[in-house]
Amino acid sequence: MKITVLHGPNLNLLGTRQPEYYGTLSLADIDEKVTARCGHHGVSVACHQYNGEGPLIDAVHQSIEGDGLLINPGAYAHTSLALADALECLQIPIIEVHLSNVHARDAMRHKMLTARAVSGVITGLKANSYLLGVDALVSLMKRSA
Amino acid sequence: MKITVLHGPNLNLLGTRQPEYYGTLSLADIDEKVTARCGHHGVSVACHQYNGEGPLIDAVHQSIEGDGLLINPGAYAHTSLALADALECLQIPIIEVHLSNVHARDAMRHKMLTARAVSGVITGLKANSYLLGVDALVSLMKRSA
Amino acid sequence: MKITVLHGPNLNLLGTRQPEYYGTLSLADIDEKVTARCGHHGVSVACHQYNGEGPLIDAVHQSIEGDGLLINPGAYAHTSLALADALECLQIPIIEVHLSNVHARDAMRHKMLTARAVSGVITGLKANSYLLGVDALVSLMKRSA
Amino acid sequence: MKITVLHGPNLNLLGTRQPEYYGTLSLADIDEKVTARCGHHGVSVACHQYNGEGPLIDAVHQSIEGDGLLINPGAYAHTSLALADALECLQIPIIEVHLSNVHARDAMRHKMLTARAVSGVITGLKANSYLLGVDALVSLMKRSA
Amino acid sequence: MKITVLHGPNLNLLGTRQPEYYGTLSLADIDEKVTARCGHHGVSVACHQYNGEGPLIDAVHQSIEGDGLLINPGAYAHTSLALADALECLQIPIIEVHLSNVHARDAMRHKMLTARAVSGVITGLKANSYLLGVDALVSLMKRSA
Amino acid sequence: MKITVLHGPNLNLLGTRQPEYYGTLSLADIDEKVTARCGHHGVSVACHQYNGEGPLIDAVHQSIEGDGLLINPGAYAHTSLALADALECLQIPIIEVHLSNVHARDAMRHKMLTARAVSGVITGLKANSYLLGVDALVSLMKRSA
Amino acid sequence: MKITVLHGPNLNLLGTRQPEYYGTLSLADIDEKVTARCGHHGVSVACHQYNGEGPLIDAVHQSIEGDGLLINPGAYAHTSLALADALECLQIPIIEVHLSNVHARDAMRHKMLTARAVSGVITGLKANSYLLGVDALVSLMKRSA
Amino acid sequence: MKITVLHGPNLNLLGTRQPEYYGTLSLADIDEKVTARCGHHGVSVACHQYNGEGPLIDAVHQSIEGDGLLINPGAYAHTSLALADALECLQIPIIEVHLSNVHARDAMRHKMLTARAVSGVITGLKANSYLLGVDALVSLMKRSA
Amino acid sequence: MKITVLHGPNLNLLGTRQPEYYGTLSLADIDEKVTARCGHHGVSVACHQYNGEGPLIDAVHQSIEGDGLLINPGAYAHTSLALADALECLQIPIIEVHLSNVHARDAMRHKMLTARAVSGVITGLKANSYLLGVDALVSLMKRSA
Amino acid sequence: MKITVLHGPNLNLLGTRQPEYYGTLSLADIDEKVTARCGHHGVSVACHQYNGEGPLIDAVHQSIEGDGLLINPGAYAHTSLALADALECLQIPIIEVHLSNVHARDAMRHKMLTARAVSGVITGLKANSYLLGVDALVSLMKRSA
Amino acid sequence: MKITVLHGPNLNLLGTRQPEYYGTLSLADIDEKVTARCGHHGVSVACHQYNGEGPLIDAVHQSIEGDGLLINPGAYAHTSLALADALECLQIPIIEVHLSNVHARDAMRHKMLTARAVSGVITGLKANSYLLGVDALVSLMKRSA
Amino acid sequence: MKITVLHGPNLNLLGTRQPEYYGTLSLADIDEKVTARCGHHGVSVACHQYNGEGPLIDAVHQSIEGDGLLINPGAYAHTSLALADALECLQIPIIEVHLSNVHARDAMRHKMLTARAVSGVITGLKANSYLLGVDALVSLMKRSA
Repeated sequence: MKITVLHGPNLNLLGTRQPEYYGTLSLADIDEKVTARCGHHGVSVACHQYNGEGPLIDAVHQSIEGDGLLINPGAYAHTSLALADALECLQIPIIEVHLSNVHARDAMRHKMLTARAVSGVITGLKANSYLLGVDALVSLMKRSA
Repeated sequence: MKITVLHGPNLNLLGTRQPEYYGTLSLADIDEKVTARCGHHGVSVACHQYNGEGPLIDAVHQSIEGDGLLINPGAYAHTSLALADALECLQIPIIEVHLSNVHARDAMRHKMLTARAVSGVITGLKANSYLLGVDALVSLMKRSA
Repeated sequence: MKITVLHGPNLNLLGTRQPEYYGTLSLADIDEKVTARCGHHGVSVACHQYNGEGPLIDAVHQSIEGDGLLINPGAYAHTSLALADALECLQIPIIEVHLSNVHARDAMRHKMLTARAVSGVITGLKANSYLLGVDALVSLMKRSA
Repeated sequence: MKITVLHGPNLNLLGTRQPEYYGTLSLADIDEKVTARCGHHGVSVACHQYNGEGPLIDAVHQSIEGDGLLINPGAYAHTSLALADALECLQIPIIEVHLSNVHARDAMRHKMLTARAVSGVITGLKANSYLLGVDALVSLMKRSA
Repeated sequence: MKITVLHGPNLNLLGTRQPEYYGTLSLADIDEKVTARCGHHGVSVACHQYNGEGPLIDAVHQSIEGDGLLINPGAYAHTSLALADALECLQIPIIEVHLSNVHARDAMRHKMLTARAVSGVITGLKANSYLLGVDALVSLMKRSA
Repeated sequence: MKITVLHGPNLNLLGTRQPEYYGTLSLADIDEKVTARCGHHGVSVACHQYNGEGPLIDAVHQSIEGDGLLINPGAYAHTSLALADALECLQIPIIEVHLSNVHARDAMRHKMLTARAVSGVITGLKANSYLLGVDALVSLMKRSA
Repeated sequence: MKITVLHGPNLNLLGTRQPEYYGTLSLADIDEKVTARCGHHGVSVACHQYNGEGPLIDAVHQSIEGDGLLINPGAYAHTSLALADALECLQIPIIEVHLSNVHARDAMRHKMLTARAVSGVITGLKANSYLLGVDALVSLMKRSA
Repeated sequence: MKITVLHGPNLNLLGTRQPEYYGTLSLADIDEKVTARCGHHGVSVACHQYNGEGPLIDAVHQSIEGDGLLINPGAYAHTSLALADALECLQIPIIEVHLSNVHARDAMRHKMLTARAVSGVITGLKANSYLLGVDALVSLMKRSA
Repeated sequence: MKITVLHGPNLNLLGTRQPEYYGTLSLADIDEKVTARCGHHGVSVACHQYNGEGPLIDAVHQSIEGDGLLINPGAYAHTSLALADALECLQIPIIEVHLSNVHARDAMRHKMLTARAVSGVITGLKANSYLLGVDALVSLMKRSA
Repeated sequence: MKITVLHGPNLNLLGTRQPEYYGTLSLADIDEKVTARCGHHGVSVACHQYNGEGPLIDAVHQSIEGDGLLINPGAYAHTSLALADALECLQIPIIEVHLSNVHARDAMRHKMLTARAVSGVITGLKANSYLLGVDALVSLMKRSA
Repeated sequence: MKITVLHGPNLNLLGTRQPEYYGTLSLADIDEKVTARCGHHGVSVACHQYNGEGPLIDAVHQSIEGDGLLINPGAYAHTSLALADALECLQIPIIEVHLSNVHARDAMRHKMLTARAVSGVITGLKANSYLLGVDALVSLMKRSA
Repeated sequence: MKITVLHGPNLNLLGTRQPEYYGTLSLADIDEKVTARCGHHGVSVACHQYNGEGPLIDAVHQSIEGDGLLINPGAYAHTSLALADALECLQIPIIEVHLSNVHARDAMRHKMLTARAVSGVITGLKANSYLLGVDALVSLMKRSA
């Protein structure tokens, strides 16, 4: 089984950007931890980061070749109906994660568009959001397998 | 005379995606039908699909070399002020089409941004939206020619 | 096969009223063109205009004896839940048309009530909205026949 | 004592229209049941149905010659300030009824305009809304007699 | 010169309806006063009252044969886009009057739709709203004559 | 067959509280009338009043042992999503009643949350709302029996 | 009998300011016409213009020594609750006038705060709004005298 | 180390209530799984369910004697500012979980009040939301220990 | 004369909870100060704290046996229509107090529901809000005695 | 120590204006009572009333020479961001008072702008609001002295 | 050529007021810098500060005798339609400046009323906003000269 | 020192697009003027234009290698939370410029998202917005250097 992990806009800056929201790990650190967790579950993983809405939609489309999608849409979670539509098209399980607790931040981040198109959402746990997201995703993949 | 046809995000998935909204034809099927209809009118046509807002804006800019633009902006119809601005810049006739009847779907799709910058809008007729769109566009092109 | 064409409030003034929105043809001119187009498709047609919400609802009810309905609800498109309910009751295909591009006008006209109850909507093409509406309707009628 | 029963727009289609909301009885069936119930209470009754806002207002005005009004304003319940004003003018008891549970339907039907001008409202009980409405109305009429 | 005076819904009940808002004169009383005032100005007048939106729109259309329109749209002032559109089509001067001070009543009456399509609005002066309306209208008619 | 009757917050004060809205009967008077009406229908009844949201939810859960629920949620009708969820869980018929005509009171009472989860709603008839509610409920119980 | 006429902010610029809204007469011209009209009615008049909210409120307070107040609050009509409160305190008749048709301008001018505290409002008739306002005011003063 | 697990209103019905949202396990099943997971982490656990807002707040207060709180506030997540305040008072880590994906349900459930006062939120994974919630909570407890 | 003092949800935590909003005194400290102040006025007092909406409503009902009610509804001030209704039922003077200045906090706390049903409101003065509240209440009690 | 007392617009009319909201004392009566209360506390006081926003802001600026400010901003409490900014600039304690219970009046008065910039707010106690305001202010002044 | 510089409410406090928003310079410092910059451009300048809306409008009117207006409307930028109207009347170039970045502050400051009536707006650069404003204004004045 | 200048969507069309809003200079003309101005300040500059949100975010990230960023986000200023987040991550000074006065255009352009993350904003001065933006930016860079 194979998982795709997609990181949205500005996540390439992790570790330098507002650590009170996003923690101190770099994206490479997170990808490493995610890969280890996937290995623990016996599933392979490919991680990608995109700042653009279009490339992110492309990557969502390509994830159909795998068995599950873990996505941190970043700010597009709150503004991109097109990305939400892309997720809606997938037949595989999807988990959305956020490093910060978006519900405790500014009001624009309370509007969850992509979340309507996924199975579950995990927010606020910094890097651990990703790791629990992997656990959740693998669990769904096994159920639908 | 020459027409540009632009398909927005997720339309590359046509035929597999929610057929109750979008019908069962693939994008290639639609392009083929559109090309035939254009041939019937004696106009040439070039069809492109983009998932990104930026490439779509680029393509709108390039359409100025033709005589008319037929665009299905997909979800960007409801969120992209930048795309609406791009359409506003064009001097050639523009028709916007949608496969599904956006007025009968969720409230976010009732906000029509790009539609403010076009001559006419055709929604809900699946592939036929495109074909009638070609007819409408050719008619406008002949009038402004 | 038989089509009903219904024109809503103020459309009897066509040709004299705000030509930048509605064009220069009179309602009789449009009915003539519509009748010709129907003849081209081999379907008969009956055209009626009403300024009142009640008579328009009556006429929608009576259209059930035909095979398709083409309606320009005028301003009732934006305010009449009762007319929308009437359209909802019909089992035959319905196309809604508008002469002007309602999406580019004042905000009250962005609320599309009757559009939720039809198959497709064509706006902004002046008299051509009706003619493409006939084409769209006949196509739907043949499919459901 | 005499009751007027007024049915609003589209209720002439009862029995054929969306039975999950409106039940399977025709309007004639309902009028028959209402008449029987009135007979049981020893009051006479006259039933009318109108699709137009104007005729409905006229009929409300004329109901002043009776002793009570039972009205199902249909969709006008949610949009017609003029009908609400007409009801406001009456000195006799008024009961508003709805076949469907309007509170459980789309948001437009949550705005109750005419209900502000009546004594009581009964919704969701299909034909029984009318019969209980008669009971309620007679009870009010006796109290104010 | 000739004036049309149109009274909207429920105004036929004047004299009996909520005198704190509408005064104690009947509609016939008002028409008599209006006719006298018009005579004073040397203009003829025709007064009509309609409860329906459709007949009111018809009458607005027919007023084009006169030189000025005085209209009390009643509750349609706040809900009827179709009536506003009808007024927008006229080329003759139009004055809107209200017996009550609509700005001091419930919030629904603060939305003035038809007022956008007239020259001037006079509210709150009971029957005197009509008489000053005649004065205002004649003044505009002379200027545009 | 057995009915549960639940009275929400502040209804224990009936008879002393704002009689223009709620009438002059005490809650005991209403329970007595309700019990008599149930007896007339041959069904047993248990009446309870709770000021708390939690005990009211508990009681809704327990009503599952009966055949129908008549509930006056009082102010919780407008604010309690948790109570609405509790009603949603029941499989037996439910009727919601209000003593006052909530549609004619302040705007907060126009938001009907629990009403979305019941079969029918009866408002504004003071104690008679309960009695007609019993009639309506028994009728539904017999149909589903 | 004595009338106070108060002109609000920016009205000192009349004649030079946006003539399509406000006409071509200067404020002195209007005061002259108003004085003549008052003389015609046999009432004395004092006219004042203030750009400040405070001085305008002071002047409203002082108008209590007269028998009627004619006020054009200018933009304060739409923003000043304090001015509305000042008007609310007066026991004498008050008429509000506007040169332009505020209902046909930008949405901020659709919120009428001071209008809630006056007897009648006359808008859109340029200088004639004032003259008819005098007529209306004198009529009210005679009635309450 | 010790964890408190709190279940909000209607969760005692689990297994019988809308399984498409909430899954087929009973609350006892979930508590059993949660207890096992806690045992796996070497932490003790106490699970409680309350339908009332008050008892839930009491229990939140008492959880201060433990080292972490896992709460499924049910519908109170969307309406209870008092519960959010209670959570705000705690100094120990808190995780909020939901069985269903609240973002994909009705709009009232998009307003997340309690979520502003917790570290992380996990939604949509049915019973697994709880188990991952335990993992997340233990991780936070270890970090703050 | 006798006063009831009611403290709403989370106030039992006073002294430990967000001292920048609520001060450093415990609830017992406040009750002691309140009792002393009442003694100074020669009135007896009973103080109660409840986290639940239901028990708080019960206590409001019971306060009718005293001569005045001092209530800090906590967060229920902003969400509980049922509590506001309970206060509306009382005939004795009521003062609402808040420790923090709710107007300077988050927007949800700007909606004051219970305040509509009391004589006066005192906010932002920490424990002194209660003491001045006692003074205010005693003053009202003497006036109505 | 020295207190400044500022009265906002229309408060010079006290005693004549809407006594149900504002009581029957004149402003001079209130100033006399306030001065006596200040004397009781051993602090001097200067009272001023202004109808204009500008003079009120000036006076707020000048109050910096004293030790505390008691302000009744009248209607400016709800509309003046400039006055709120002026209060924000002060370093001395500020108490806002209102004679009427603004929370129980029209919705425009529920928006509290100046209250965001003060320590505490006392409303609804008529002249007593001022006296308790003095007590509150002196208490804060002593704490910060 | 001559420039008028107008400072709105509370700007007389500059240097003492919230330096994180407004910087540490006094208004006299800014006027000195502005005068120097104007001298550099060879234009004369007159600087005035007013706390009142009325005096500010007066000063805007008088600025017509100069060739350009530089205005910092302070909080009136967000609330004063009357000031916006005054600016609308001017024929000379106008630049609006703000010391702080109003877009990054509270939501009330996001509503820009006066900005609709000026050529350009410069915000957030503290004293430099004024100096660049002078440069911008002189540039516009030369173009229109 | 080095500046990055970023132009957002559709700015490549400058000179041809709506000159009433954007002026008649091409983007190359503006870049040339900007480069000259930078030279005057002794700083180097690199100018880029992107139509896509993603490339623009990439470029913002890369600007961290310079000492200041001047950005015209075009329509993304009003819709892109992701771009605003990217700006928020930068530690160098940022100035946002707009050619047109966005505050005087349609309401969608009144929502300023990116402006929350910059030091200052300059709008409405056409090409001069850029040149003053360079001046402002250099000034900030020198201060932070």
